[in-house]
Amino acid sequence: MANTHKVIFQPAGRRGEIEEGKTILEAAQALGVDLEALCGNKKVCGKCKVRIEEGYSEKDNLESSMSHIFPPLPSEDELKHIKPEDGPGIRLACSSEIRGDLKIFVPERSRAGKQVVRKVAREISIALDPAVKKYTLTFKPPTLHDMTTGDYERVLKALEDDYGLRGITFDFLALRTLQDALRGGNWTATFTIWMDREIIKVEPGHVDVCYGLAVDIGTTTCVGYLCDLSTGKVINTESMMNPQVPYGEDVMSRITYAMTSDTGLETMQNAIITGLNEIIEKVVTEIKKDGPHPGYEIDDLTIVFNTAMHHIFLGLNPTYIGRSPFIPAVQRSLNIKARDLGLKINPAGYIHVLPIEAGFVGADNVGVLIAQEQYFQDEMVLVIDIGTNGELLLGNKDRVCSTSCATGPAFEGAQIKFGMRAAPGAIEKVKIDPVTREPQYKVIGKADWHTHIEGKINAKGICGSGIIDVIAEMFKAGIIDKTGKFVMNLGTTRVRSGVDGKPEYVLAWAEETSINADITVTQGDVRALQLAKGALYTGAKLMMQKMGVTKLDRVELAGAFGSHIDREASLTLGMFPDVPIDKVIVVGNAAGDGAIMALINKDKRREADERARWVQFVEIATEPAFEKEFMQAMHIPHMKDKYPNLKAMLEEQKAPIASSIKG
Amino acid sequence: MANTHKVIFQPAGRRGEIEEGKTILEAAQALGVDLEALCGNKKVCGKCKVRIEEGYSEKDNLESSMSHIFPPLPSEDELKHIKPEDGPGIRLACSSEIRGDLKIFVPERSRAGKQVVRKVAREISIALDPAVKKYTLTFKPPTLHDMTTGDYERVLKALEDDYGLRGITFDFLALRTLQDALRGGNWTATFTIWMDREIIKVEPGHVDVCYGLAVDIGTTTCVGYLCDLSTGKVINTESMMNPQVPYGEDVMSRITYAMTSDTGLETMQNAIITGLNEIIEKVVTEIKKDGPHPGYEIDDLTIVFNTAMHHIFLGLNPTYIGRSPFIPAVQRSLNIKARDLGLKINPAGYIHVLPIEAGFVGADNVGVLIAQEQYFQDEMVLVIDIGTNGELLLGNKDRVCSTSCATGPAFEGAQIKFGMRAAPGAIEKVKIDPVTREPQYKVIGKADWHTHIEGKINAKGICGSGIIDVIAEMFKAGIIDKTGKFVMNLGTTRVRSGVDGKPEYVLAWAEETSINADITVTQGDVRALQLAKGALYTGAKLMMQKMGVTKLDRVELAGAFGSHIDREASLTLGMFPDVPIDKVIVVGNAAGDGAIMALINKDKRREADERARWVQFVEIATEPAFEKEFMQAMHIPHMKDKYPNLKAMLEEQKAPIASSIKG
Repeated sequence: MANTHKVIFQPAGRRGEIEEGKTILEAAQALGVDLEALCGNKKVCGKCKVRIEEGYSEKDNLESSMSHIFPPLPSEDELKHIKPEDGPGIRLACSSEIRGDLKIFVPERSRAGKQVVRKVAREISIALDPAVKKYTLTFKPPTLHDMTTGDYERVLKALEDDYGLRGITFDFLALRTLQDALRGGNWTATFTIWMDREIIKVEPGHVDVCYGLAVDIGTTTCVGYLCDLSTGKVINTESMMNPQVPYGEDVMSRITYAMTSDTGLETMQNAIITGLNEIIEKVVTEIKKDGPHPGYEIDDLTIVFNTAMHHIFLGLNPTYIGRSPFIPAVQRSLNIKARDLGLKINPAGYIHVLPIEAGFVGADNVGVLIAQEQYFQDEMVLVIDIGTNGELLLGNKDRVCSTSCATGPAFEGAQIKFGMRAAPGAIEKVKIDPVTREPQYKVIGKADWHTHIEGKINAKGICGSGIIDVIAEMFKAGIIDKTGKFVMNLGTTRVRSGVDGKPEYVLAWAEETSINADITVTQGDVRALQLAKGALYTGAKLMMQKMGVTKLDRVELAGAFGSHIDREASLTLGMFPDVPIDKVIVVGNAAGDGAIMALINKDKRREADERARWVQFVEIATEPAFEKEFMQAMHIPHMKDKYPNLKAMLEEQKAPIASSIKG
Repeated sequence: MANTHKVIFQPAGRRGEIEEGKTILEAAQALGVDLEALCGNKKVCGKCKVRIEEGYSEKDNLESSMSHIFPPLPSEDELKHIKPEDGPGIRLACSSEIRGDLKIFVPERSRAGKQVVRKVAREISIALDPAVKKYTLTFKPPTLHDMTTGDYERVLKALEDDYGLRGITFDFLALRTLQDALRGGNWTATFTIWMDREIIKVEPGHVDVCYGLAVDIGTTTCVGYLCDLSTGKVINTESMMNPQVPYGEDVMSRITYAMTSDTGLETMQNAIITGLNEIIEKVVTEIKKDGPHPGYEIDDLTIVFNTAMHHIFLGLNPTYIGRSPFIPAVQRSLNIKARDLGLKINPAGYIHVLPIEAGFVGADNVGVLIAQEQYFQDEMVLVIDIGTNGELLLGNKDRVCSTSCATGPAFEGAQIKFGMRAAPGAIEKVKIDPVTREPQYKVIGKADWHTHIEGKINAKGICGSGIIDVIAEMFKAGIIDKTGKFVMNLGTTRVRSGVDGKPEYVLAWAEETSINADITVTQGDVRALQLAKGALYTGAKLMMQKMGVTKLDRVELAGAFGSHIDREASLTLGMFPDVPIDKVIVVGNAAGDGAIMALINKDKRREADERARWVQFVEIATEPAFEKEFMQAMHIPHMKDKYPNLKAMLEEQKAPIASSIKG
């Protein structure tokens, strides 16, 4: 039996005996303490900060026990995240091992909250015709006359007689359960059939419900939507940071890791499979089922991702999509047995991997394509999918082109000082009075807008849509100029020098927050956003040039984690070429919608395969004009004269804020 | 580091340091000593007897070292096999752990020899059209214009352009190797394609050879035939005792084990999969390949077995074929990915499981059916497949019926005192002079017949065909009567009382043998054979009655391990209803031939599926007449007057033996 130590977590008041050498994070998980661990214990997100309050020991005097309680100096990994302003005793829970009795305080900011399920912007209206369906059959018990007919043959005959299904086969694992299911259900059983082709599950008796999971793997974040395939409704959502982040923050660095480490591909593949299994485990808690494998209730899974994530997920060497001529291993969609990938859904079920478009444009863009259906429309539409890579689709029923541009993770709230995911406590909308520079903001989980006057409102950080909002508002209020530089001496204490000596804007004072620290927007945050939006703008502009398109009829903003982007703010920042504000539509996570649609209606899979081949990939990063355009596009707003409606908007903003709040 | 002991094996003279606690068998295997282990270390075959000659130690005096060298008294398992006549110091190598320095003698009888590859009786003449074929393609290296086409799509286009193959898919594991194979082979690669449907392997460059394995799993013995699919030739054969034997010697006792033990099915399935992987590992030594998985060279595998072995192999619950109404899980053929079964051939390859006929008649009988093709013939043919179960096929082009009867393993040389497999040293043919009762016999590995006069000829035991021969000859020479009872006082020392007081016939004197013991045929051996042949005869007779067949045009004797059965001997013993001797054909292992044919020609798979449904199963064990018929059928020969030709044969036998030896 290993040595154990008493550990107390405050303010939750949870306590217990924890084995020596476990991390504080493991202790928190063991004791049911709510502690954020976005990155999956990889020491990269810096979100699991805790304060070591004291060591206590009944055996030793304080001094001697202290010496073995406080861990050695923080590691280099930890020091990247721990700032002087965090105060004393702060450690990353994932990195600190327990070597003695401990009292630990979990700051509000480090407490996890359940991810807010953002309702898809548009109700998905699509015929319910999933790839996986359930059929119930009742048999006459066999007699000695049936000795030469197997149970397999009995089922096939009944499927043809009762449902007109022919040529059905049995998955081998489903076959293994057939005999006992038939007899256990007193010769009534329910057969889960994939694509009217293969039986992937046999259950005794009559079973109605059937579940599928639509998965969207981003470079930075992953999300899974659990769907009830008998209604087509999304009934639960789970998300997490992509556990591959420790191996590279962007696509190219992960490809490089795969190329330079013998086990790099395998390591990253295992990381994402393990992460997805965690999502599966959590998302199925919505389904009340006993048994050792609740995930096995999921009978179908569709998945979208960019091409590099696609290759790594499948264990395909991503080297060749990272170097000229950028050839992917496979373009078409794939159906792979869950057991072959180690995913813990029904092991006889299939993982439907949506097709990719090209070496640089992946299945996530195909998801957007089949969700937004530009190919059925007359209008010239630009669809921008905002993630660590920005992906663009431009076109109409005659022609659609796609491209990809590296935005970085700023739009997702990552690499932003007080960035957080869209969970309760996140500031998601911001208005700044252009005269007083006082902000109002909306926090997820609360219905109303808040100001400083109202006192404590438990803000915790800023999510993706809040970042875009606040920086646009800062520009409109003259806090930053068009180059993104802070304007100082504005007569407000909100604009100040931060601890690093660089300017920052205080969005919420410590007393309004639940983290007892001022929530600020820093010069670094502004720069990160400028880089991201500049990349998007440049991509869209060059694409229009290449296609000879001069005017956009509509812009659709998509993205899993910045999905509530304010369209005014996006115009203010100059995220894309000009278009009337009522023609900017925020569509939510269209890539995820595409995955959900392919789950709910199998014809969407065929459509995805056809359209993924039909769409034309254009390469813009190699355009000679790229660099010059990009430098210009960093400005806010880019070429101000091109925004006739921004001017009017800015005028309008000068009216008292109160009048526009409920809008 | 564990304690080790010096171990010397004689007469091989191999020596080494062996870790304490290893068994003598493990030590023999580690030191490369040739030691029989038919049952795969399950303590059931009793074939690995060794004599512990002495313990020696440089540290201790002999007495003290002896005390910890000789293992404790033999276990009950061992005592079943060790007989007083074995002499002192005999232990089963698989059961004795090494606890001190040892000198061990391996008696000749316990030395393994390589299984003699019995040439299939008839050359299999069948068109070469295997399910798995190799196609080589050469590509132009892709350029930037090919960015939207995956390697997958490139291959499919070339297969269609060059070979007219359409709609091919990729196995997921094969796909993973595609990119590197294409580039590693400088854009020439070879694709192994299953059924012109699915790519199951990609190899760089041009590859010609392709291997498949045909497997015949019997209740008692398993055999694998390695075929070169580019020529259709069998290039290696490996066999072993079925490792499920410890869980039950016959089909019913294994079904019972599966029903009564929670993990029984899993245990037996693991045993046969592990055993088959051992066969795979050994059989591929014929293919010279480096790498960690030489078995992966095998791209296709066909398998036959009885219904219970079929179910257990597939992890299907065998309970329901063991009780009324005896319904199998599946009747048709199955194609299962090697990786799903854990078989260590190409993991993307398929295991083709031939169809079964009914709850009692398995894929092995279907193998016999497609090898013997009664359904194309005018003559009324009885095919007898001899194994632990005897399976019968009776019919012609109009109708073929099948049945099964429990013969026990005697025909395979098991449960026979000096029984052994068909390996060098096995007596395979016997003649006994009816006057002097002196035998002549033929030993596998030697060209000529032998008599006592010739002295030492290194006989080691008796294989299946030898058992049938010697008991038929003993009857003809009057050594046993028609009830199987020994006739004593014949004036020859060869008929004597054995150590158990029961009579026995000395077939070879100790000095002729390599085991320094008289090789005898005991009363128990005769009884075992009578039970076996009685079961066969009864089955055939009742089947003829049910079908209204009065006369057989031909009898075909099949069987993997009694494959060189002497047709005269089989008639003498009364193994089947009467037929002219020139109409008795010994066809070898027809079940295995069927598996080989399905490997070499894929149309045979379709034929097997069609004919397995077409053949009619008849149940004879439940016939009211069964018991009475069986009691009569135990006699030798059954109803002597029904053998007009036996009489003539017996007359002929009275001529000097020498004249008939070369015949």
